[in-house]
Amino acid sequence: MLYGITTGDSSGVGPEILLKACANKELNHPFLAYGDLAVLKYYDELLGYRLRLRQSDGPRDYDPECLNVMDQGIMQRADVTPGKLNAKSGRAGREYVVAATRAALAGDIAAVVTLPMNKEATQLTDASFTGHTELIGKECGVEDVTIMLASEQLIVTHVSTHVSLAGAIKLAKKERICMIIRLTVEALKRLKENPRIAVAGLNPHAGENGLFGDEDITEIRPAVEWAKSQGMPVEGPFPPDTLFYLAVEKKKFDAIVCMYHDQGHIPLKLLDFEGGVNITLGLPIIRTSVDHGTAFDIAGKGVASTTSLVRALEFAVRLATRKRDPCAH
Amino acid sequence: MLYGITTGDSSGVGPEILLKACANKELNHPFLAYGDLAVLKYYDELLGYRLRLRQSDGPRDYDPECLNVMDQGIMQRADVTPGKLNAKSGRAGREYVVAATRAALAGDIAAVVTLPMNKEATQLTDASFTGHTELIGKECGVEDVTIMLASEQLIVTHVSTHVSLAGAIKLAKKERICMIIRLTVEALKRLKENPRIAVAGLNPHAGENGLFGDEDITEIRPAVEWAKSQGMPVEGPFPPDTLFYLAVEKKKFDAIVCMYHDQGHIPLKLLDFEGGVNITLGLPIIRTSVDHGTAFDIAGKGVASTTSLVRALEFAVRLATRKRDPCAH
Repeated sequence: MLYGITTGDSSGVGPEILLKACANKELNHPFLAYGDLAVLKYYDELLGYRLRLRQSDGPRDYDPECLNVMDQGIMQRADVTPGKLNAKSGRAGREYVVAATRAALAGDIAAVVTLPMNKEATQLTDASFTGHTELIGKECGVEDVTIMLASEQLIVTHVSTHVSLAGAIKLAKKERICMIIRLTVEALKRLKENPRIAVAGLNPHAGENGLFGDEDITEIRPAVEWAKSQGMPVEGPFPPDTLFYLAVEKKKFDAIVCMYHDQGHIPLKLLDFEGGVNITLGLPIIRTSVDHGTAFDIAGKGVASTTSLVRALEFAVRLATRKRDPCAH
Repeated sequence: MLYGITTGDSSGVGPEILLKACANKELNHPFLAYGDLAVLKYYDELLGYRLRLRQSDGPRDYDPECLNVMDQGIMQRADVTPGKLNAKSGRAGREYVVAATRAALAGDIAAVVTLPMNKEATQLTDASFTGHTELIGKECGVEDVTIMLASEQLIVTHVSTHVSLAGAIKLAKKERICMIIRLTVEALKRLKENPRIAVAGLNPHAGENGLFGDEDITEIRPAVEWAKSQGMPVEGPFPPDTLFYLAVEKKKFDAIVCMYHDQGHIPLKLLDFEGGVNITLGLPIIRTSVDHGTAFDIAGKGVASTTSLVRALEFAVRLATRKRDPCAH
């Protein structure tokens, strides 16, 4: 089975990261690139990798000696503008993702791994575009998706992400927390034997018995109790400030369910700024992503790190190939 | 000038940490211990340090060859119950802090360094007790105090601490943020030449131009602009998830002003769980504290780490002895 990698916005570092990882022989699983052949050829020549690039007609048309491209035929060589906001490359980046998502839904590829799009560029031709993850969710016809961030040391999921902190508090309700716990447990069971999952509190010291807010008692604790009653390997809610230390340094937990974006993003980016992987939970397909942006400031220079792409592909393979636990929820 | 160290709740690890640090010759500045001589003698014998303990009558009665104790005469030997909640030791811990604070206000000691009290034990005889820092603030007659947490790698201050997350959002107002920035700049100028201070946003991505909440625009940015107009070395607001990486790994900032308790506590405790120092800003005296609790589970065993106490005394000395910058605000 092949994996699919979308090359992202052609003004950013996506195409060159894919080429560099191929040149370094860092991608050890067969994949199809969803992008434009002309764009990849442009960067291959610019950076002197001299890879063997070929157009593929689909999952049965694969040459292991080449970089196989599902050419979307949108960008021409002259359209490529490294480091510059470009409406055409914004639109093209969107199309690559749609094509790969549809291929995964059709069972042609085992997973979708995405390189970065540029939100501003894509919005120039699609004002309704709010994000990569939301686009894939829409293509898959689902709304309840969430982001799992994974580094070598820590895995975090989030009850909410791109909303205000006040909005995040409103979203931290029992039903939603139960859903995120369930998605986290399902994903962790594919990544690891006998995972141990902690749920963070919302308030300082997890509210200190209601002294600093009552959501830890009224919303989070009942969600954890429900998950336990279903046999899920979950504990909490824990005081957030010591929980990350317990998970990372004391190895007490494999993953933490976080109540808001920065609760998980701050420690994860501090631990592993370049190598994080973004995994979308709640989709009918497997989708992982690099955890960095288009980095226009270094595009076309060949200096961008391949670490996050390499790990994103590895996580996709682990999620796609691990046998499901017969007791999984 | 002498420093003052309060020995904390006698059921916890405070007294033994002080003795262990003396036995290891880790406390390289003259100090008076505010506690009970009987308690220190009890732990000294229990753990076999055989230190020379003596009662002091005040700052002029100091013997550099001994551990000089401002004996409060509250706890007797028979009252000491390692690891057990004890109303008398809770009340005594409170009295040590009051005595040291009054000595600092009178100019008898240069700073107060505190070992941990136990909130539950103290509340058995003083139901109004909410915390160590609040007690000292009350003794000093001030209300606008805040906590600075310092490790070797990172210093953070907080616009609010022990309130719910919803309450923290309400407290993140321009006037209060200005006050915390000012206290942070004043303290940093005593700790370091030419400090660079960053202010974190409140919302994910610092609100992404108002898309995820507007407090970053309406409250935080005006506070930073005010601080800059006063010549303070401050920048922000920055997206919180990348800011800690920029400060710690890229060394771009010496301190971060955080908008709520866990924004600063999560990364600091992840980086340096045992060695953090707690510094109270906004007081007319200098007060630093260890960043750990009474640890009843290991009390009386001699295994508690002295790192935080050693650093708390060092920070007190740096704050007390550094010449004020003539341009300081």
